[in-house]
Amino acid sequence: MSNNRDLKIRRLNRSQADFDHHLDHLLAWESVSDPNVQATVAEIIQRIRTEGDVALVEYTNRFDRMSVSDTAELVIREDELQQALESIPSDQKEALELAAKRIRRFHERQKQSSWRFEEEDGTVLGQQVTALDRVGVYVPGGLAAYPSSVLMNVIPASVAGVEKIIMVTPTPGGEKNPLVLAAAAISGVDQVICIGGAQAVAALAYGTETVPAVDKIVGPGNTWVATAKSQVFGKVGIDMIAGPSEILVICDGQTDPEWIAMDLFSQAEHDRIAQSILISPSVEFLDQVEAAANRLLNELPRSEIIRASIEGRGAFIHVNNLEEAAELSNRIAPEHLELSVEDPEALLQHIRHAGAVFMGRYSAEALGDYCAGPNHVLPTSGTARFFSPLGVYDFQKKSSIIYFSAEGAREQGKVAAQLAYGEGLQAHALSASYRVGHNAK
Amino acid sequence: MSNNRDLKIRRLNRSQADFDHHLDHLLAWESVSDPNVQATVAEIIQRIRTEGDVALVEYTNRFDRMSVSDTAELVIREDELQQALESIPSDQKEALELAAKRIRRFHERQKQSSWRFEEEDGTVLGQQVTALDRVGVYVPGGLAAYPSSVLMNVIPASVAGVEKIIMVTPTPGGEKNPLVLAAAAISGVDQVICIGGAQAVAALAYGTETVPAVDKIVGPGNTWVATAKSQVFGKVGIDMIAGPSEILVICDGQTDPEWIAMDLFSQAEHDRIAQSILISPSVEFLDQVEAAANRLLNELPRSEIIRASIEGRGAFIHVNNLEEAAELSNRIAPEHLELSVEDPEALLQHIRHAGAVFMGRYSAEALGDYCAGPNHVLPTSGTARFFSPLGVYDFQKKSSIIYFSAEGAREQGKVAAQLAYGEGLQAHALSASYRVGHNAK
Repeated sequence: MSNNRDLKIRRLNRSQADFDHHLDHLLAWESVSDPNVQATVAEIIQRIRTEGDVALVEYTNRFDRMSVSDTAELVIREDELQQALESIPSDQKEALELAAKRIRRFHERQKQSSWRFEEEDGTVLGQQVTALDRVGVYVPGGLAAYPSSVLMNVIPASVAGVEKIIMVTPTPGGEKNPLVLAAAAISGVDQVICIGGAQAVAALAYGTETVPAVDKIVGPGNTWVATAKSQVFGKVGIDMIAGPSEILVICDGQTDPEWIAMDLFSQAEHDRIAQSILISPSVEFLDQVEAAANRLLNELPRSEIIRASIEGRGAFIHVNNLEEAAELSNRIAPEHLELSVEDPEALLQHIRHAGAVFMGRYSAEALGDYCAGPNHVLPTSGTARFFSPLGVYDFQKKSSIIYFSAEGAREQGKVAAQLAYGEGLQAHALSASYRVGHNAK
Repeated sequence: MSNNRDLKIRRLNRSQADFDHHLDHLLAWESVSDPNVQATVAEIIQRIRTEGDVALVEYTNRFDRMSVSDTAELVIREDELQQALESIPSDQKEALELAAKRIRRFHERQKQSSWRFEEEDGTVLGQQVTALDRVGVYVPGGLAAYPSSVLMNVIPASVAGVEKIIMVTPTPGGEKNPLVLAAAAISGVDQVICIGGAQAVAALAYGTETVPAVDKIVGPGNTWVATAKSQVFGKVGIDMIAGPSEILVICDGQTDPEWIAMDLFSQAEHDRIAQSILISPSVEFLDQVEAAANRLLNELPRSEIIRASIEGRGAFIHVNNLEEAAELSNRIAPEHLELSVEDPEALLQHIRHAGAVFMGRYSAEALGDYCAGPNHVLPTSGTARFFSPLGVYDFQKKSSIIYFSAEGAREQGKVAAQLAYGEGLQAHALSASYRVGHNAK
């Protein structure tokens, strides 16, 4: 059912009186958690915890239209991953390998190291950095099974030095996605298990006879997966709470309007609730991009999704100058920010919050999705104010190191005892005082 | 009601057949979230969001036995903080200032910097590190109002360069704690507001006429506060989910038994559900520590809390050697780990998970609570497997920088287009291809 009418794109003007109200309305987004989903997920988790593999097989057969009798049938061996890699077209394989190489190279620079320093009295303080032992990576099945997502979630864990990386992915009807398995082979996955939904998250969090319990679960998923991740948080670590994907393009009006229209579409084609916003000081340019969008839309296979996204949540905003654009961007704190302007370095000085900044006219956001190097898992819905891109640091953790010399303990024991008495904690005070020497044997 | 009978301390032996079962039982801990608390907190948050200061005043008067008519009465001015600092005894003031200095010095080393690198074709990639704009620090009122907690939560935010640090603390009956206010003055708080409970968390997350909306909320609190923090997570960042405090001491049997007994007590005095565990290869030493504990217990003001904690959740574990002790420690992943042994560096090589490691006989855990320098906000309940101590990194966030040269976009555009077609995302492929030049105008 094709629809050839022109796109209705929301237009806002920074100078209009009710602009703030309109902007708030545009950005309003709350993930509503359905109590029924919460309750069903809680039950699934409980059953996986108590019944293990038996419940896992039952749920997998029911939800994924499978008929396995044993979880062993759900485990993909490493040689199968290699076979998948050999089976895909060589240009696909080469592209995946090139992307993986660039992603790995960028993430190597994120690796944190342990450090220590010694004080004059011989006391040593520091921070020990170690990798997580085991990580679970969720990869959605069906339409949203993206090999790029495998690379982006697995490679940072691999670079961090995680001992065991377990990937779970549902295979509805038993159908496996060879591109996803090939990406797993390239990126350093240790084991793939064909399970999905809340039952997969529960199995990773608590472990079953077949699925090893992990320390952290990352990766995108539907409502069931997201709800399950939030319910197991605390037992294990999880990555960010992802909302709909977003792009904000700031353009001075000098980039090809078709490039900008397609950049906005590339975000919109993800999802009807994805958000694409364009800000420019040139009304004429906004008109040109709108015209380009209408020319380009109908040749795209996902045009209906794009239309729903652009008309429902998109906007073209006219500002007086680029400083105003930067100020707006800081209020929005977008997941993806394109600075499609002549001097992006100058504009970057004004940018405080963004998941990733794509600078200049050549840095299409789509390049960042696949092979620029930085991660494509980014904070959404304004959370770039406090969240960071997924990175190696998400798979490392720190322990403080405190090694007092006798002299150091003598000095600091007095300070600690003083403060402990002030807080009414006498055992703390005595424990510290013993090291000062007064009560030592 | 004093109780002079000997402590009943649980004894376990690593070599006994059912050891794993007993250990699991000992460590079992789940924070149960009460549905009534959840519902009440949700209502409080909703009212603060819609009614702002009006609801904030009403809740504060009701829950904190206050009778203010305006939130302005709840705001403590900066000169009042300075007055508090001048009002406390000079030795307390000096101890607080010494502790703050050491904490600041340690945390300065955690500061992360932005970085970039340029590829051969002129493409620039990097990571921009910036401080959060605004942070809220929750400080409990009443008995658990600890000035050390103010230092530990505020100083990392201050070192990170957070523009505005807002502290909230309830003042039941209007009573203010001068030590807490003095600690606020020393550590770099911009504003103190005398509010608490779920209403304070809601006000910080959503903002009211008086309370500025913040980007992240940190600091300890009771069930109401913890539940509110979990409910606003996603709208703002929060710190870890804290369980009961714990200490694990590994001792070779050569440290003064009274020192070790008091170290265990210093954790136990926090809370009836705090956990103190001692591991040693010497049964004789375990006996000596038990005897010392019985000698020392009754002179302590918090002896009843200590007794409940030690008898309810404590344990002395006999192992065959220190390697077994390290292996056990890795299973427990303790918040605080004391390596009270002759060669702590050798033992540290075997330690993978711990919030903070206190090395050697002089490094009492209590020193770390106040003035060693590293943070005392640490992961509990085994979450040291994936969480880190609170640090400057919790108040900084990262943005990826992607700046393609024309040549870089030409090369990588091909790779991205190849992968995008493989994922069925045509707009992504075209957006990347435009930069390759084939379709460019």
